[in-house]
Amino acid sequence: MPIIEMHLMAGRTVEQKRRVAHAVSQAAAQALDVDINTVRILITEHGVDEFSVAGVTVGERNEARQAGNALT
Amino acid sequence: MPIIEMHLMAGRTVEQKRRVAHAVSQAAAQALDVDINTVRILITEHGVDEFSVAGVTVGERNEARQAGNALT
Amino acid sequence: MPIIEMHLMAGRTVEQKRRVAHAVSQAAAQALDVDINTVRILITEHGVDEFSVAGVTVGERNEARQAGNALT
Amino acid sequence: MPIIEMHLMAGRTVEQKRRVAHAVSQAAAQALDVDINTVRILITEHGVDEFSVAGVTVGERNEARQAGNALT
Amino acid sequence: MPIIEMHLMAGRTVEQKRRVAHAVSQAAAQALDVDINTVRILITEHGVDEFSVAGVTVGERNEARQAGNALT
Amino acid sequence: MPIIEMHLMAGRTVEQKRRVAHAVSQAAAQALDVDINTVRILITEHGVDEFSVAGVTVGERNEARQAGNALT
Repeated sequence: MPIIEMHLMAGRTVEQKRRVAHAVSQAAAQALDVDINTVRILITEHGVDEFSVAGVTVGERNEARQAGNALT
Repeated sequence: MPIIEMHLMAGRTVEQKRRVAHAVSQAAAQALDVDINTVRILITEHGVDEFSVAGVTVGERNEARQAGNALT
Repeated sequence: MPIIEMHLMAGRTVEQKRRVAHAVSQAAAQALDVDINTVRILITEHGVDEFSVAGVTVGERNEARQAGNALT
Repeated sequence: MPIIEMHLMAGRTVEQKRRVAHAVSQAAAQALDVDINTVRILITEHGVDEFSVAGVTVGERNEARQAGNALT
Repeated sequence: MPIIEMHLMAGRTVEQKRRVAHAVSQAAAQALDVDINTVRILITEHGVDEFSVAGVTVGERNEARQAGNALT
Repeated sequence: MPIIEMHLMAGRTVEQKRRVAHAVSQAAAQALDVDINTVRILITEHGVDEFSVAGVTVGERNEARQAGNALT
């Protein structure tokens, strides 16, 4: 341990995934004072309509913003 | 909070994902008497051979059903 | 399916847990048009220092608020 | 219950997923002395840059190995 | 990998947890043809009112059963 | 997002939980170039017999180590 599961919006590049895995592993190992070799990270991606805040998905929010822009 | 992770069979439409995110957020906020803005929902989809009951995947059950239909 | 995991702040009463399980199951079944008997919900509770937003735990926020009240 | 979530590297065949679902369900039911019909398994797959050990993703390790082979 | 998260009803003995960890690790390693040293298992326990089927918690079902027995 | 779930061995102090929440939130926000206010972390703790590697729980490993020490 620790085993860390990171839920991210889909669409990150390989470079971003590698960078966040490295940074979060370092941070967790130092903060918990454990050997970094014990730190495992799983990344799970979610599409724009697979994450919602207050019942409204990111996809709906994007559409509303685009519709709003179209009117200005 | 609450943070809610919903495991669903793959294949739902955008409309279905938006509807369930909205309905479950409403239900959770009311039942727990919390501000709906604190409710986050993650949807994770699983293919027919990534969910099993009693060791038999949905994919296997579908095949068995189709095979059974072919014999009638 | 669906299998739903709800992360809640620790301290809910039995009554609240039963109410949210019932309400969310109903909402999910109706929104996804599935048999409610297929809906399973797991509740996982987290203490005040086991949930953070922007790197600050609920426990820290509570202490800061109490300290703030003590000064007014 | 039990509800079991298996995080696997992406790329398993349908046959492998069915075999592990069956084997793990059997093992869990026997070890816990429960009816196998109560055992549900979810498989979640992760790409080579969505799983890391010690901050280094499987994708990075594969590249380093290939680069190492190229030099020998 | 694999990383396996097992959700169990609370109340298992140490012996049962050790037995299921051993059995499931063996089964997963053999079925996936991977080194058992790569298999990690996390057990998360849930109280009787933290697991529900069809919106009814195990706690409610136990109470209903006991009430039913009291009438016979 | 991101929503991060950290599985830790039980027994961390409040101070340690606060430190790792802060460090990992900072690291994730910087690496992903997102507003730290969007970063939520859940900590889930597991007892010594709720985490195993290669089918052997931490509890078993501790006992074996203590037994080994007793013989030297």
